[in-house]
Order: sequence, then structure tokens, then C-alpha cells
Amino acid sequence: MLTLFHAPQSRSTRILTLIEEMGAADKITLRPVDIIRADGTGARDHANPHPDAKVPALDHDGTLVTESGAVMLYLTDLFPSPLAPVQGDAKRGAFLTWLFWYGSVMEPVMILSGAGLDHPWLAKTYRGMPEITARLQSALSRGPWLLGDTFTAADILIQSPFHWFKDAIPDDPLIRDWLARGAARPAYQRVMQAEAQRRAA
Amino acid sequence: MLTLFHAPQSRSTRILTLIEEMGAADKITLRPVDIIRADGTGARDHANPHPDAKVPALDHDGTLVTESGAVMLYLTDLFPSPLAPVQGDAKRGAFLTWLFWYGSVMEPVMILSGAGLDHPWLAKTYRGMPEITARLQSALSRGPWLLGDTFTAADILIQSPFHWFKDAIPDDPLIRDWLARGAARPAYQRVMQAEAQRRAA
Ligand SMILES: N[C@@H](CCC(=O)N[C@@H](CS)C(=O)NCC(=O)O)C(=O)O
Ligand SMILES: N[C@@H](CCC(=O)N[C@@H](CS)C(=O)NCC(=O)O)C(=O)O
Repeated sequence: MLTLFHAPQSRSTRILTLIEEMGAADKITLRPVDIIRADGTGARDHANPHPDAKVPALDHDGTLVTESGAVMLYLTDLFPSPLAPVQGDAKRGAFLTWLFWYGSVMEPVMILSGAGLDHPWLAKTYRGMPEITARLQSALSRGPWLLGDTFTAADILIQSPFHWFKDAIPDDPLIRDWLARGAARPAYQRVMQAEAQRRAA
Repeated sequence: MLTLFHAPQSRSTRILTLIEEMGAADKITLRPVDIIRADGTGARDHANPHPDAKVPALDHDGTLVTESGAVMLYLTDLFPSPLAPVQGDAKRGAFLTWLFWYGSVMEPVMILSGAGLDHPWLAKTYRGMPEITARLQSALSRGPWLLGDTFTAADILIQSPFHWFKDAIPDDPLIRDWLARGAARPAYQRVMQAEAQRRAA
């Protein structure tokens, strides 16, 4: 059995988008949990098995998977679909690179630059928004989506912070159009609507 | 053809350790490249295909894989071995979680705490060294290695920063013994020796 521990309008929302795009909603039980939000509201939920009380967390027959990239990879490997190149596909390496790059480069850069923090080690380790922008531009100049012709889980993961932090969107038509294409997808629209209702409930 | 772009005594050294542990050295061409080191020595090497001129970078028949976790996952999927649970194995989810957690939580925490940076967003997003320590303790209290009885690529990746930054090693016997067991492995010893020779050359 697969259970996704989820809090509406959070970092687990992108997992719902992936599940909706894969048409796999009937295979995964949604388990709402409370989290402490950025504004301090909410509470640690002891029903949440995530060691840091965060979301997303996925339980598969007693095995816990955390970290958004890991959850996305695990689900796309379990349910092969156009959302991800499987092992052996020539695009598998690029796909893995995007998933890992999100958490180990892009998210730190966005948080550090949003917080206005600066230090020689940070620039050395992570570079900055210009390099993030260049990486996206270089991919998007070759195809409508990060891996080329096909929309994948990498687009979902890497678009997700820009849907929340619109001020961080690079001023580039390639990137803006890519984000607009992602936001216009019916699966994304359905998830946004359901999430607003869950949050209001 | 598989080519690893490598700089001695850097973040690509852990990929060499993995390759040595897998006994796959004859299947991967090592391509030394220069990098700009933390002390400012060295130079950007135009032979390096990594978009940020970093290492590691792996080329497989024209497909580029970057980010240490992605390179490790790609190689262990390509050459199945005891170093990694493959898809379908009950430990696959935990394995993916460790690989992603390294880059998206552990490395940022170590760099930010080493740099002495503090900000409410950082604690919120990444927590801190106490949570890193707790995560390692919890795994190591159940087995000699992070996944239990078997030494895997997750141990190589997650031990690697402690081999360089010994001051950051949590004061806990479980963790110190685990690091000592990793450093005592013949493959690790061989790689350390070869790396010292490459660096001196
Ligand atoms: N690196 C994790 C981050 C998860 C995360 O920070 N989730 C937030 C939701 S946006 C959370 O659960 N926060 C609750 C808390 O910090 O206590 C991932 O990408 O999955
Ligand atoms: N997130 C990357 C980081 C790679 C990285 O920072 N590598 C360093 C070597 S320790 C590098 O190549 N630095 C050269 C530079 O910053 O120009 C990974 O884990 O693979």
C-alpha cells in the first residue's frame, strides 16, 4: 500500500501534481497531516512519519521515502509513464541530474538569495541565480520542456518554487512561457483547485 | 562509453571510491580536469562539460550526468552490485532518500553552519546539525551501515564530507565508529593513496 503524507499548498503539492499527471490517484492514499507553516501556524503532527515532521513523505508497505526528488523518482519508477524516462532510456541521466540539481543547487540558491545571505562559500558551492537562469535557458532553448519534447516530473519539480515565489522568476520569455505552459496544464489546474478547497476546509 | 571527469581530492573522489568498491574501474575512463579550488588555485577547464565547470561529471555515450547523487545512482543502476538496492528491492526507497537527503539537507546544513550563517528561513528549511546527527544515529543504531547490514553508495556519499571536515564530526561513538569502518575499507584506502599521488603529480 502507498500512502502520501500531505499538507495542502506545501512542498507536497507538487507530488499531487505528478500523481494527477500520471493518472495514478487511485493507487495512492492521501493522508492529510498538519505541519508548522512558514508563518508559524500549524503544529507538528505525530501521525506524520517524516523524521523532521515535514511533507512530502511516502510510505510504501512500511518503507518510508522522503525528499521531494526521491518521492518523484520512486513513484515514476513504480508506475512507468511518459512523465519520466526509465532506466535504459537515453534521457535517464539528464532526468536524474535535474531531480538532484533541484534540491542540491536550485533550492539553496533561491532560499539564500531570497534571504539576502552572502558568503564566499555559498557562491563557491552553489553559484547564484544567473547560473540557475542559464541552466534553464540552455535546456528550454532546445525544447518546450526541460528534457525536450516531453513534459516530465522534472518540469513539475523545477517549476514548483516559481509558482509560489513569482518575484524570483527570471526575466526571460523562454522561462516565463515554460512556466505558463506548465500552469495551463489541466492536471495542474485540477490540483490547484482541490488544494485551495483543502486549505479552506 | 563512460567517462568520469575528475579532479583529485574533490567531490569527485567519492565517485572513485564507489567505482573501486564496485570493481568497475575497467568500465569507466577517468578524464582528469582542472577546477578552481576553494583556495582560488586552479582554473576553469574547458575540457570539462559540466555547465558550472565542476566535478563530478559523467558522460555516457553523449549523455551528461552531474550532481554526485545522480552520478552514483546512475552508475549503481548501470552496474548492479551489493553497493545499491535496485528497483523493486524493499530498501530502494531508503536508498533514494539518503542520496537526495545528502544534497538537499545535509550538505547545505554543513556549509551554512561552517560559514556561521543564521537566518530563520535556513532553520525552517534545513533544520541544523542536531537533526543531521539524529538522522544518522537513528539509522546506525539499527545496523553497522545506513541501510543496515550492507555497505552501500549511501555510506560513501554521506561519509564523504566528514572525511574532509573532521571538526564537523558529531561527538557520538556510533557515528565515529561508522566513519572509521568506512575509512578502513581497502577500496577507500586504495583510492586515498592514488588520489594523493595524482594531486602531487
Ligand atoms: N527537502 C524537503 C523539504 C520539505 C519541506 O521543507 N516541507 C515543508 C512544507 S513546504 C514542511 O513540511 N515544513 C514543516 C516544518 O518545517 O516543520 C523536500 O524537498 O521534500
Ligand atoms: N552539487 C555538486 C557540487 C560539485 C562541486 O561543488 N564540486 C567542486 C569540487 S569539490 C568543484 O568542482 N568546484 C569547482 C568550482 O567551484 O569552480 C555535487 O555534489 O556534485
